[in-house]
Amino acid sequence: MKQILSHIDATLETSLQRLFSLLRIPSISAQPAHAADCRKAAEWARDTLAEMGFAARLSETTGLPGVIATHHEAGPTAPHVLFYGHYDVQPADPLNLWHSDPFDPQLVDGPRGKRIVARGAVDDKGQVVSFLEACRAHLTMTGKLPVRLTVLLEGEEECGSPSLAELLTKERENLKADFVLVADTNMWDFTTPAITTSLRGLAAVEVTIKGPSRDLHSGLFGGIALNPINALTRILGDLHDATGRIQIPGFYDGIAPVPDTLLASWTQLGFNPRAFLGEVGLHTPAGEADQLPLAQLWARPTADINGISGGYQGEGTKTVIPAQATAKLTFRLVPGQNPQQIVKNFETFITSRLPPDAKAEFKHFGAAPGFSMDLNAPFMHAAREALAAEFGKPAALVGCGASIPVVEAFKTHLGLETLLAGFGLDDDCIHSPNEKFELACFHRGTRAHARLLAAFAS
Amino acid sequence: MKQILSHIDATLETSLQRLFSLLRIPSISAQPAHAADCRKAAEWARDTLAEMGFAARLSETTGLPGVIATHHEAGPTAPHVLFYGHYDVQPADPLNLWHSDPFDPQLVDGPRGKRIVARGAVDDKGQVVSFLEACRAHLTMTGKLPVRLTVLLEGEEECGSPSLAELLTKERENLKADFVLVADTNMWDFTTPAITTSLRGLAAVEVTIKGPSRDLHSGLFGGIALNPINALTRILGDLHDATGRIQIPGFYDGIAPVPDTLLASWTQLGFNPRAFLGEVGLHTPAGEADQLPLAQLWARPTADINGISGGYQGEGTKTVIPAQATAKLTFRLVPGQNPQQIVKNFETFITSRLPPDAKAEFKHFGAAPGFSMDLNAPFMHAAREALAAEFGKPAALVGCGASIPVVEAFKTHLGLETLLAGFGLDDDCIHSPNEKFELACFHRGTRAHARLLAAFAS
Repeated sequence: MKQILSHIDATLETSLQRLFSLLRIPSISAQPAHAADCRKAAEWARDTLAEMGFAARLSETTGLPGVIATHHEAGPTAPHVLFYGHYDVQPADPLNLWHSDPFDPQLVDGPRGKRIVARGAVDDKGQVVSFLEACRAHLTMTGKLPVRLTVLLEGEEECGSPSLAELLTKERENLKADFVLVADTNMWDFTTPAITTSLRGLAAVEVTIKGPSRDLHSGLFGGIALNPINALTRILGDLHDATGRIQIPGFYDGIAPVPDTLLASWTQLGFNPRAFLGEVGLHTPAGEADQLPLAQLWARPTADINGISGGYQGEGTKTVIPAQATAKLTFRLVPGQNPQQIVKNFETFITSRLPPDAKAEFKHFGAAPGFSMDLNAPFMHAAREALAAEFGKPAALVGCGASIPVVEAFKTHLGLETLLAGFGLDDDCIHSPNEKFELACFHRGTRAHARLLAAFAS
Repeated sequence: MKQILSHIDATLETSLQRLFSLLRIPSISAQPAHAADCRKAAEWARDTLAEMGFAARLSETTGLPGVIATHHEAGPTAPHVLFYGHYDVQPADPLNLWHSDPFDPQLVDGPRGKRIVARGAVDDKGQVVSFLEACRAHLTMTGKLPVRLTVLLEGEEECGSPSLAELLTKERENLKADFVLVADTNMWDFTTPAITTSLRGLAAVEVTIKGPSRDLHSGLFGGIALNPINALTRILGDLHDATGRIQIPGFYDGIAPVPDTLLASWTQLGFNPRAFLGEVGLHTPAGEADQLPLAQLWARPTADINGISGGYQGEGTKTVIPAQATAKLTFRLVPGQNPQQIVKNFETFITSRLPPDAKAEFKHFGAAPGFSMDLNAPFMHAAREALAAEFGKPAALVGCGASIPVVEAFKTHLGLETLLAGFGLDDDCIHSPNEKFELACFHRGTRAHARLLAAFAS
């Protein structure tokens, strides 16, 4: 291992040049004008993998192709890892806010040493190349990889993965593995690696409360006529109790307490909610009063009204009692909650509170459950060991308050668990001007991936 | 009196022809292209009044002129009545929904006999001419009027009365009177006259709840970050208690119980709330549970949310926690409530319920008190007597849930009380296609005005 890591250190400059050559390809999947560039990036990855000794090919879809490469010389008893990354990038605009051409990668000085600046520097080309360079170091120094490896690179992650299900279904037989390694997440901070062990799910619903058959004059009808906005606020005002607990019946059914391992990890993180909230003008955690701030973010479900509308919205005033009022809500869900049941219970919550003459209509916009990784899975133990060895401290076991669609896709289409370990930082400006990847993160990410590959094998 | 009424009956056809000549003038005040028509209608009124023996003139304003005419031969001890009406009309569109030219008045058959169909048939030309014809009958049969009379006709009532304050201020000395008679309201039904004895006031306010300094992603912040829409619905959900009583502190301070005279009159009206609400798709009175439906409409204040907005309003769903959310409210106010205090107490209601980190900003759009007429004023007794004599039953003493700006203008600028008695019906389609005035209402309105003039004198 020592020799492999030394090789990575010694060849960092060459690794960087390879990353730069990929970063120069403006593979913006959301813009049809860049379709050829996307294909060029896919071909770059295929050729790079082939040159390293992988059996590499493009897999065509109705959209942009996937790249699939296999290196199975470790033999049938070695663990089988499916690595996932994506070769496409976000659009670069607004261009005038960039300090350099987004597709002419630069190495510039920053407070933490040199940083790589380009669109895709970290998301996800930098993360992908750091993994490929780790494979290259193994292959160069030992002539083999410690695990059976399948690499899957998607070309449409930044535009909603419209063909991912098609790709996974078509290639199901070729993507068999023991688990998936996704390198598209962040470290806890510059010195602390992280493994994301849970994701929240999401259920989205819209409710419209209907009252009078037409808009009414509040002078001629006010007082005697049902006002749908008043009714909507009265009902939604009951969503939480005074302690922040959500009042939908059965909302918390099935939720397990946070495992001690995670609580212990969270406590060590020194998370400062005032600092976290201070970045967006807030100070006080607004969730359940009896829950840790990190649990409010990662382990507890939410009921957020994302939009509300009804009646007169212009300047000034209008004496109208509108015929209806609408609210859009999303529920962030945690493992154990049944998304369909939550939506059903929400509808009951609304309809059981309707005043006379009011009707409620609902629209649904999808429902997906929360995920939690098996903390006792062998790949999890291996990953924690490898990351601790590289960084000299345990990996933070973090949650993610949002969902990561690929995790659900791998579960649904391939039946695979996912290990989320990446080396970005929260201030990397992904999707924004001047996206960067700290050179140290690229370098240590490569070293960490080399250790992860070895750890998975043992 | 008998002779005067007989004269009115005998000359109905001539009275109608005079009304028709005024209806043929398209005096649409909201449309600058009809400015000359408006002036023509003003001149028609001036000349008609002068021909009857009034000292009549136009009173110029920065907008359309008023018509002022005086007939003071009844002498200094006779009561002095200021009659108010307006010579302008609403626009006639949509023209394709009219069954005849809106400015070519027709006498057509209807379920209650003949009806006059034209724009302005009742609002307000028909009501004005019925009053003028009553004056004419007095003058023709007795050579005099029983009261000192000042007639004021406005030309901008249908476009918000932009010059009324200017006109009343300029002509204050010429508009001195004991009270104002406004003929611009309706009967209770086809056989029951009505006097409007109360109007609700209005206070309008907008509240914006601000939370985070920018829109947040509900996955990355949901649960820990204050959601301003949730906060707004939670606070406004407290506006009413379960019985419909408004929870703003001090909201009901100063409100006197409905006088027995009014309660007795209301009870006799046979008001059917299910029928009234059924017209607009509702069934159940939504106001304070312990109040009569008519009291909810006329005598009790309201807190209606007229508009609400925040976050994402488009199709589908968006996982946003918005930076702010806004609601627009109006309070219909009744006599005794202090509008400024109500607004202040509403702000306290909001700010005392704000969760940590939330800020509230307010905008005000005016506040006017409710009005109630003095049921014991001599002109009120006289009016009830005259209407009962003409219709063979007592006038309904009704309330109006909205405000009537001229009533407040006369109080503010001239210090005068207003008597609201008119002869329209709720189904006259004012402001709509095929506006009509029942011929019987025009006729009995003229007779009733003749009786009213006599009654005021005694």
